[in-house]
Amino acid sequence: MGFFSTDIETMDDLFVHTLRSMYYAEQQILQTLSTMVEKATNPELKSAFEQHLAETQGHVRRIEEVFEMHGVERQTASCPAIDGILKEGDGIAGEVDVDDEQILDAALIAAAQAVEHYEIARYGTLIAWAKELGRTDCASVLHENLEEEKAADQKLTKIAESEISFQASA
Amino acid sequence: MGFFSTDIETMDDLFVHTLRSMYYAEQQILQTLSTMVEKATNPELKSAFEQHLAETQGHVRRIEEVFEMHGVERQTASCPAIDGILKEGDGIAGEVDVDDEQILDAALIAAAQAVEHYEIARYGTLIAWAKELGRTDCASVLHENLEEEKAADQKLTKIAESEISFQASA
Repeated sequence: MGFFSTDIETMDDLFVHTLRSMYYAEQQILQTLSTMVEKATNPELKSAFEQHLAETQGHVRRIEEVFEMHGVERQTASCPAIDGILKEGDGIAGEVDVDDEQILDAALIAAAQAVEHYEIARYGTLIAWAKELGRTDCASVLHENLEEEKAADQKLTKIAESEISFQASA
Repeated sequence: MGFFSTDIETMDDLFVHTLRSMYYAEQQILQTLSTMVEKATNPELKSAFEQHLAETQGHVRRIEEVFEMHGVERQTASCPAIDGILKEGDGIAGEVDVDDEQILDAALIAAAQAVEHYEIARYGTLIAWAKELGRTDCASVLHENLEEEKAADQKLTKIAESEISFQASA
């Protein structure tokens, strides 16, 4: 037995466990995004984090909707991946000289994109598994979260390219 | 000061720190992929992991090349994100009933795709920063790693869709 408290015997178990893990992850991300909104100095970046904070509240609600559709209890499961990703982002942001706004913003964007990519991977997996389990209804709801994560990632890339060009302004 | 041992005062510091963190990450991934090759039961999946293991050895060498090009010491830095992602994958694989090969393969694919997406995010960031720092030579080498990570992710999606369809064979 591994370090999770429940054994996984069926694909449905695997789907539900991973969904619960993402339920935990989204709640941790909510907390972190609040801090990132405060730390970001570039107005466009600050606004992007604010928008994604609102979207993330919606992601939590959509996961709750999937729990209900699938008839399973609303629970969180541990998610060592998001704990590690957020710890890394927090650690790097803590190391950066806060007087240099461009470096701090660049570090914040990198941290946020690591989070987005983890979510893109997990929602992609959950959608595939939901379809295999015949739950296209759950897949459809989770797909809305996936699309918003992808859009958030692309927006951050654009901000990084256009606004946080530290060479141009150095 | 955060939990990293070096303060980050310039964009170059941020680039080098993140490169060192990826140097550590790729080495951890190498070890994990060896285990995943052994665990995978689907022949196509096993072969994909074997191919990516060989590619990952190349990624380590390319990072070493970038250290040399950029004139910095070859060092690893901590990477709590990859530690968490690998811990999660190992934990889930440890929970799965090993007699059910399809569930184990599905869990292994999910774990590998979480790793690929972390790397896609990080190489994307490193390439953008290298370009900003005027190091298009470093960006070009890192881009080769990025393309192989993206291809590995896409290959895993295809295997998941075509080979590990647990409903069809149930």
